[in-house]
Amino acid sequence: MAKAARQRLVPEQRIEMILDATLSLVGTSHFSVVTMRDIALACDVNVALLYHYFSGKDQLIRAVLARALGQVTDDYESRRDQHRADFLGDIAAWFATHQAMAPTMMSRMVKLMSDQAAQPIKDPELETLVQGFYRFESNLIVSTLEAGMAAGQYREVASDKLARFVGLHLDGIFHAAESRGELRIAEDIEELRGLLTRQLEP
Amino acid sequence: MAKAARQRLVPEQRIEMILDATLSLVGTSHFSVVTMRDIALACDVNVALLYHYFSGKDQLIRAVLARALGQVTDDYESRRDQHRADFLGDIAAWFATHQAMAPTMMSRMVKLMSDQAAQPIKDPELETLVQGFYRFESNLIVSTLEAGMAAGQYREVASDKLARFVGLHLDGIFHAAESRGELRIAEDIEELRGLLTRQLEP
Repeated sequence: MAKAARQRLVPEQRIEMILDATLSLVGTSHFSVVTMRDIALACDVNVALLYHYFSGKDQLIRAVLARALGQVTDDYESRRDQHRADFLGDIAAWFATHQAMAPTMMSRMVKLMSDQAAQPIKDPELETLVQGFYRFESNLIVSTLEAGMAAGQYREVASDKLARFVGLHLDGIFHAAESRGELRIAEDIEELRGLLTRQLEP
Repeated sequence: MAKAARQRLVPEQRIEMILDATLSLVGTSHFSVVTMRDIALACDVNVALLYHYFSGKDQLIRAVLARALGQVTDDYESRRDQHRADFLGDIAAWFATHQAMAPTMMSRMVKLMSDQAAQPIKDPELETLVQGFYRFESNLIVSTLEAGMAAGQYREVASDKLARFVGLHLDGIFHAAESRGELRIAEDIEELRGLLTRQLEP
C-alpha cells in the first residue's frame, strides 16, 4: 500500500519529499552525523534512488538549504503587498514570514545555517547561500528604514546598525526557541516589532 | 619532553586541561560526534586515563558545561562591585562578562547549550544546567530592573519581558557571531547596552 502510494509520486514530488525529510533530520541531529542511509530510511526510498537525484550528501544539503531559503523569500514576497500600509512596511512582512514559518521550518533552517557556520572546514557553496540570506535580510531592512526616513515617517536612525540589531534579535529568537525551553516565537517577534516601532516613531 | 612536562601536571591541572580541550572540540564539532578517543588525542593522554577521571562522555560533557557556566558566573560576581555606579548596574557587569569571555569561551558554551537543546533525546542533567543558567541570567536582569524602578532611576518597564528581550538578544549575538561571518561581539553588546539605556532613562 505504501509502495503503491510511492509509485504515484512524480520525480518532483519525490525530490520535495526527500528535501523535507532531510530538513527534519538535520533539525534534530547535526548534519555531519546524518548519513544518506538515514535519509533514505526516513523517506522510505532506497539509497540508490537518493543517489539518482543527488550526487552525494553535500549536494543534498545544499539543495535543502537553497529550497528552504527560497520558501522564506517567496513567502515574504507574497506578503509585501498586504503590509504596504503597515508602519513597518516590508519589515512587517519579513516578521510575518518568520511568524508563519516558525517554529518548524525556520528553526530547522536557522539550526542548519548555524551548524554549517561552526564547521572548521566550511562548504563554500553552503556559506554563499547563508551569506546571501543575511544580505537579503539586511538589504530589505535597510531599504525600508531609508525609505521611511526619506518620507519623514521614521525618526533618523543609523539604518545599518538597526538592521543588524533586528537581524541578530531574530537569530536570538530562533536560536533560543529550544534552548530556553519555551516556544514563544510569535510573541517574541511581537515584542521586537513593538520595540522597533517605538524606536522609529517620530 | 612532552611526556616529562605532562608528568608534572597534578590531577586538577590535568582535569582542567581535559575540560578545556573538550570545550574546544565541541565548539567546532557537534558533541554527539566527538568521541572519547578524539578528546584523548586532543589532550595527548590515553583513553584509559580519560576514563580514570570521567565515567564516560556524558559525564565529561556535563563537567565541561558546569565548569564553563561556573566560570561565567564567577567572572560576573567579580565584576559586580566595579559596576555599582553604572546606570545599568548588575546588567552592565553581565554584559562586561560576556564581552570579556567572547568570542571563544562564551561562543563555544552557547553552541554546546544549543546543540544539546536540539537533541531529540536530551540529557536531563545537561538540561538542568542550561535552564539554571538562563534562570540565573533572567533573575539578575529582573532584579536589577525592579531595584532601579523602585529607586526611581529607571522608567517603568515590564521587567520580565525586557529581561527576556535582553537574554534573547545576547543569544542572537553569540549565535550570529559565526554564521553572519563577522566577529563583532563587543560592538554588538555595546549596541544592546545603548538601546537598553535609552529604554530605561526616565
